[in-house]
Amino acid sequence: MALDWEAIFATRAGRMRASEIRELLKLLEQPDIISFAGGIPDPALFPKEAFREAYASVLANGSAGAALQYSTSEGFPPLRDWIMRQMQALGVPCKPDNILITSGSQQALDYLGKLLLSPGDTALVTWPTYLGALQAFNAYEPRYDRLTPVHGNRTPAAYREAAAKAGGRVKFAYLTPDFANPTGETLDQEARERLLDLAGDLDIAVIEDTAYQSLRYDGKGVPSMLALDVARRGDIDATRTISCGSFSKTLAPGLRMGWICAASHVIRKLVLMKQASDLHSPTINQMAMHHVAEHAFAQQVEKVRSAYRHRRDHMLAALQRHMPEGVSWTRPEGGMFIWVTLPDHLDGAELLARAIETARIAFVPGRAFHADGTGGNTLRLSFSLASDEAIDEGIKRLGRVISEAL
Amino acid sequence: MALDWEAIFATRAGRMRASEIRELLKLLEQPDIISFAGGIPDPALFPKEAFREAYASVLANGSAGAALQYSTSEGFPPLRDWIMRQMQALGVPCKPDNILITSGSQQALDYLGKLLLSPGDTALVTWPTYLGALQAFNAYEPRYDRLTPVHGNRTPAAYREAAAKAGGRVKFAYLTPDFANPTGETLDQEARERLLDLAGDLDIAVIEDTAYQSLRYDGKGVPSMLALDVARRGDIDATRTISCGSFSKTLAPGLRMGWICAASHVIRKLVLMKQASDLHSPTINQMAMHHVAEHAFAQQVEKVRSAYRHRRDHMLAALQRHMPEGVSWTRPEGGMFIWVTLPDHLDGAELLARAIETARIAFVPGRAFHADGTGGNTLRLSFSLASDEAIDEGIKRLGRVISEAL
Repeated sequence: MALDWEAIFATRAGRMRASEIRELLKLLEQPDIISFAGGIPDPALFPKEAFREAYASVLANGSAGAALQYSTSEGFPPLRDWIMRQMQALGVPCKPDNILITSGSQQALDYLGKLLLSPGDTALVTWPTYLGALQAFNAYEPRYDRLTPVHGNRTPAAYREAAAKAGGRVKFAYLTPDFANPTGETLDQEARERLLDLAGDLDIAVIEDTAYQSLRYDGKGVPSMLALDVARRGDIDATRTISCGSFSKTLAPGLRMGWICAASHVIRKLVLMKQASDLHSPTINQMAMHHVAEHAFAQQVEKVRSAYRHRRDHMLAALQRHMPEGVSWTRPEGGMFIWVTLPDHLDGAELLARAIETARIAFVPGRAFHADGTGGNTLRLSFSLASDEAIDEGIKRLGRVISEAL
Repeated sequence: MALDWEAIFATRAGRMRASEIRELLKLLEQPDIISFAGGIPDPALFPKEAFREAYASVLANGSAGAALQYSTSEGFPPLRDWIMRQMQALGVPCKPDNILITSGSQQALDYLGKLLLSPGDTALVTWPTYLGALQAFNAYEPRYDRLTPVHGNRTPAAYREAAAKAGGRVKFAYLTPDFANPTGETLDQEARERLLDLAGDLDIAVIEDTAYQSLRYDGKGVPSMLALDVARRGDIDATRTISCGSFSKTLAPGLRMGWICAASHVIRKLVLMKQASDLHSPTINQMAMHHVAEHAFAQQVEKVRSAYRHRRDHMLAALQRHMPEGVSWTRPEGGMFIWVTLPDHLDGAELLARAIETARIAFVPGRAFHADGTGGNTLRLSFSLASDEAIDEGIKRLGRVISEAL
């Protein structure tokens, strides 16, 4: 492999880095490499028959004209209603005008960066955090400061002063409370409440990414940040939490469909932004997604959970067997990722180069997910695409590569 | 109707105005109103059977997994190839890396505003121009200056000095050379060459919107700005013209699918922007659109041309019969719109209010399309959705309403 590892991993987190990671993932798609790098759902689990029925139904004579025509920027009303009912079931009383359909949650993050950030403003994120969020926000030239919701954040004054010194204001906190990409970790209710306190003190928005929320394999669900915020304020229209959801991890990512649930005055601003940026998400996909959601969501979530739960368990067991002393990892209650921490003196990027050359296995080095370029001794393993055999063999080889590097 | 006309039309062109026009169009969707307001294609002409076959084929066992999965930001390679061949046939030698798939040409305009404009920079547009372009660009806070390509533009120095005085630089010229929305007018080759000269002198980009290019009903095609630019420079990668295309007016708008064709170094920047803003356009739609384009594009364009040609002719004949002295209008060689100029003292917005109240007919007042709020005595008529009977009766009523106002 003629990859320039230094060029790929030495830059500051940003536009180029995220795109380079994606380039890297493409390069790693070689048949003889066992890859735990890609963070994508298993296409074998997609509800293909339900989508076939949905598109056929949507393109039947009565509705084909509407499916192929322009539609409103807010989104297809029955789909907004379906999402509204889902949100209600998750403890968020809301109305259709609290919901905007977006082209994946990536578009939601882009819009929120555009809405909230001026150059030099501060966005609070965890170290590590979702790479696509950094990529979306970077277009609006923020500074990042660090949230540490588990161990206790800094004081509001400390965040405020650091932001002012950098010439801007703290504008929002972004986080994935459930089974985060890349760590797999879930915030407990107390940490969520403390984060709402901090956001209240700073008077900033909270952007909650719920992409993996439905993929819980065990343990008890924790109320979402938005549910907790509504419980405090009594009314979604009085909340500061903006919740970004997605069908990508439950039904399918190829339709690029997600949503934002938030106070209606926020949604109204985002609708104008949507109209200016792409008019609306594709009508036909919204109608088809509504059909599949109505007919197959619950079974599909059960199917996906069961498959990924098995893979997570299998990978955790393999790690237990094969990792040398001094290596630790997360035990996620859901999602797609396990986060591995190596002894301090090891570097994930160097390890990857060696792992590909000598063992034909791949993962994503953890530094990429850190806004400040730290995290060199970490790496992300995805179990969503791996067979039992690939996990057994791949984790065995990973253990060997790490042992040799120690 | 309890519409606040002053509020709707008195504001400066911008975000709110465009969205208000769209609100207005929704309000006008009443069964007893004959509307020439909406600028949308006729759903009766959509190639429904071809789309049915396309989605069934794409969701067949061999390809369903790929159709529902994530894909690359550049776009589905066979669709990029198809567009490349179309561009080549239109006199633009190019390669796949000169093509980016976008979510409609609206997204292309948004990206180009984001790529090229800083607040206070100048965008050159015609008065009137496409409302959606103003809406997309406004997010990046430009100043507008006026192109007059038919009668001769101002000098490069004049544009440059005005831009500097406003605290920015001229960044691009935007125009729809063929059958423009809203005027229906087409620029001759000489005007296109002059505009390329001006862009060269100013060293700015030219954004060419080709949304209606395939909808020519008579007269001889004029080479696109990009084709002329390539002819001058010898290589697309040396050109300054960025061409935005769309399937919305030929195949269907509900899939939100368009493209940008430009120098590969421009496309590379836009691919990173696409990745950060929504990862990629929906995989399934790109595959389905490719299928329909391969199997039905030529016949479909013929069918649409024939239907709209008839409606244009019918509306021009009705205008000839019913318009009072002092009213003039364009005779478009293609597209969907006829542009009517009233005597100076009449106001299109006032006339619309009266037309709805007393005659139950609707159109879009022309001031909305002018970046400076002029054009009060103009209006846009769309013939794309109207039956012969609606045209006969509606234009007769319009003539009466104008006569009464004179």
